[in-house]
Amino acid sequence: MKLNERGLLVVLSGPSGVGKGTVRKALFASEGQNFTYSVSMTTRPKREGEIEGKDYFFVTEEEFKKKIEAGELLEYTYFCGNYYGTPLSQVEEALDSGKELILEIEVNGCRQVKEKMVDAVTIFIVPPNKDVLYQRLMRRGTESPEEVQKRISKANAEFGLAYQYDYIVVNDDVKNAADRIRAIIRAEHASTRRSIYKYYELLGDTGENKDEQ
Amino acid sequence: MKLNERGLLVVLSGPSGVGKGTVRKALFASEGQNFTYSVSMTTRPKREGEIEGKDYFFVTEEEFKKKIEAGELLEYTYFCGNYYGTPLSQVEEALDSGKELILEIEVNGCRQVKEKMVDAVTIFIVPPNKDVLYQRLMRRGTESPEEVQKRISKANAEFGLAYQYDYIVVNDDVKNAADRIRAIIRAEHASTRRSIYKYYELLGDTGENKDEQ
Repeated sequence: MKLNERGLLVVLSGPSGVGKGTVRKALFASEGQNFTYSVSMTTRPKREGEIEGKDYFFVTEEEFKKKIEAGELLEYTYFCGNYYGTPLSQVEEALDSGKELILEIEVNGCRQVKEKMVDAVTIFIVPPNKDVLYQRLMRRGTESPEEVQKRISKANAEFGLAYQYDYIVVNDDVKNAADRIRAIIRAEHASTRRSIYKYYELLGDTGENKDEQ
Repeated sequence: MKLNERGLLVVLSGPSGVGKGTVRKALFASEGQNFTYSVSMTTRPKREGEIEGKDYFFVTEEEFKKKIEAGELLEYTYFCGNYYGTPLSQVEEALDSGKELILEIEVNGCRQVKEKMVDAVTIFIVPPNKDVLYQRLMRRGTESPEEVQKRISKANAEFGLAYQYDYIVVNDDVKNAADRIRAIIRAEHASTRRSIYKYYELLGDTGENKDEQ
């Protein structure tokens, strides 16, 4: 019996090249999963094979800035000349439906999310060591050497932001990392701060006297 | 890869009759488990079939009070004319060995444990509803009607102490409850506060600059 039945906002983040996307795909491929996702918005050019509304919502810089001004983004970031962000619309709706909303965001978006959604569960995905990350970035091959170098510098700065997150998950093996994230979600549902009101409801008790005891 | 390799002190508690012992046994029967336990000390008379040093350390009230005075107990409680407590000896040793130490204690011992071991993970086990608990207590048959009534009154008071715990786990089904506790342990190992120093070690970084970023 799960006491807290509202979905969780689960933020996956970590330096570029750490395998966030692969871990997220493994999560969504889990048996009996109850996950949903929110498509990010970006001003960066569409890569080959990417689909509008599935991989990203591709918008112009002008459109993106309007969204920021209207407060319609949960978080956003600017990197290498492009904006990336999460539209606020549908986030609450997804959570109320009881599904876990998995968000994959840039590292420096964590603080913005926590400010707007204090209940978010934030997970920092890290490589087993730095070399693995550098190799992944260089092997990717979709970016110029200058862009790879930028991403490496950015990753090194981002390692220091791990302390802002609730959990640190090492992506040494995609299955292990996904299993650990599922355990985190299950544990968070059982956390007292999320489930105590439902618990008193279950016992037919208002819990009004709980602070006196 | 598990960042935090020290064992966790996991406190299982909940009103008498909630099935703490059954859940604990299910945990210890898990495949590939890495759990150890600490035998409690009590002044209550040994029940038929109970074994000294396995079910409890059975001591006299005088011996128990000496342990309290010497500060040799992690927590203790007095109930129905008897003392129950956890000897501090071997607790740290068990945790340093990398095993998860599962402690089953009385509800009002939680605060004492948290005072001495702030890192403890405390789990409050609850019945799916109050009637299930009352029925279990009455069916047990090892106590007099007066003792059953005392335990029911005590359980009702203890429901209000759930907020002192980190997690609330409903024991609607022993397997489910044990699975959820395993998920909690796994998640706690990945929590940033437990794993951040190991993480910086892994990256060959002292993490000294992390507050500046």
